[in-house]
Amino acid sequence: MKILHHPDKADIQLSSVLYALSDPVRLFILAELRRSGERTCGDIDVPVVKSTLSHHARTLREAGVVSVRVHGTQRFLSIRTEDLESRFPGLLTSVMNAYEHSGEPMIINAE
Amino acid sequence: MKILHHPDKADIQLSSVLYALSDPVRLFILAELRRSGERTCGDIDVPVVKSTLSHHARTLREAGVVSVRVHGTQRFLSIRTEDLESRFPGLLTSVMNAYEHSGEPMIINAE
Repeated sequence: MKILHHPDKADIQLSSVLYALSDPVRLFILAELRRSGERTCGDIDVPVVKSTLSHHARTLREAGVVSVRVHGTQRFLSIRTEDLESRFPGLLTSVMNAYEHSGEPMIINAE
Repeated sequence: MKILHHPDKADIQLSSVLYALSDPVRLFILAELRRSGERTCGDIDVPVVKSTLSHHARTLREAGVVSVRVHGTQRFLSIRTEDLESRFPGLLTSVMNAYEHSGEPMIINAE
């Protein structure tokens, strides 16, 4: 089974987390994961091509925001809620509340 | 007097604000502004060249995070606290608390 690199909790940097959260598609993905817990990439209903979704998943993983578990051809994404809460208490909740209430449009950039 | 463009409160986008906050130097600038209110660029003690500081000030202004007032050759920066609080209640406080407690190093990227 392929193991993907995830930063240790202590190495999660605020600026990297904020960068990972600074994209409408990634905010949408996180909102979906918060609603439903673990999801495969294929189960997340975003109108982007698979390679773009993989890119977003990687950005979120490398920043320490999500955990990606590879099983066969599927990748299961979940938010590293405990690690984020331990590093930056209240931050994710605050950002996601802002997202839910802001009506931010999911502008799709061709990547 | 030169007037710089600032987005209207209603046009401030969450993803743009998070992007503006996703840099250690910009987080440091905001921490300084929170401590002391309005400051000129020259009064902010960051080890970056003037053009880099201007670039950061512009990123923060265009995202709607800071207001920049031009007076003669000086630019006075202040956080748009009321506008941000109205758009995204608690967000800035949450991010800045995370910054103050995270010990994020101010890594300087040559730009």
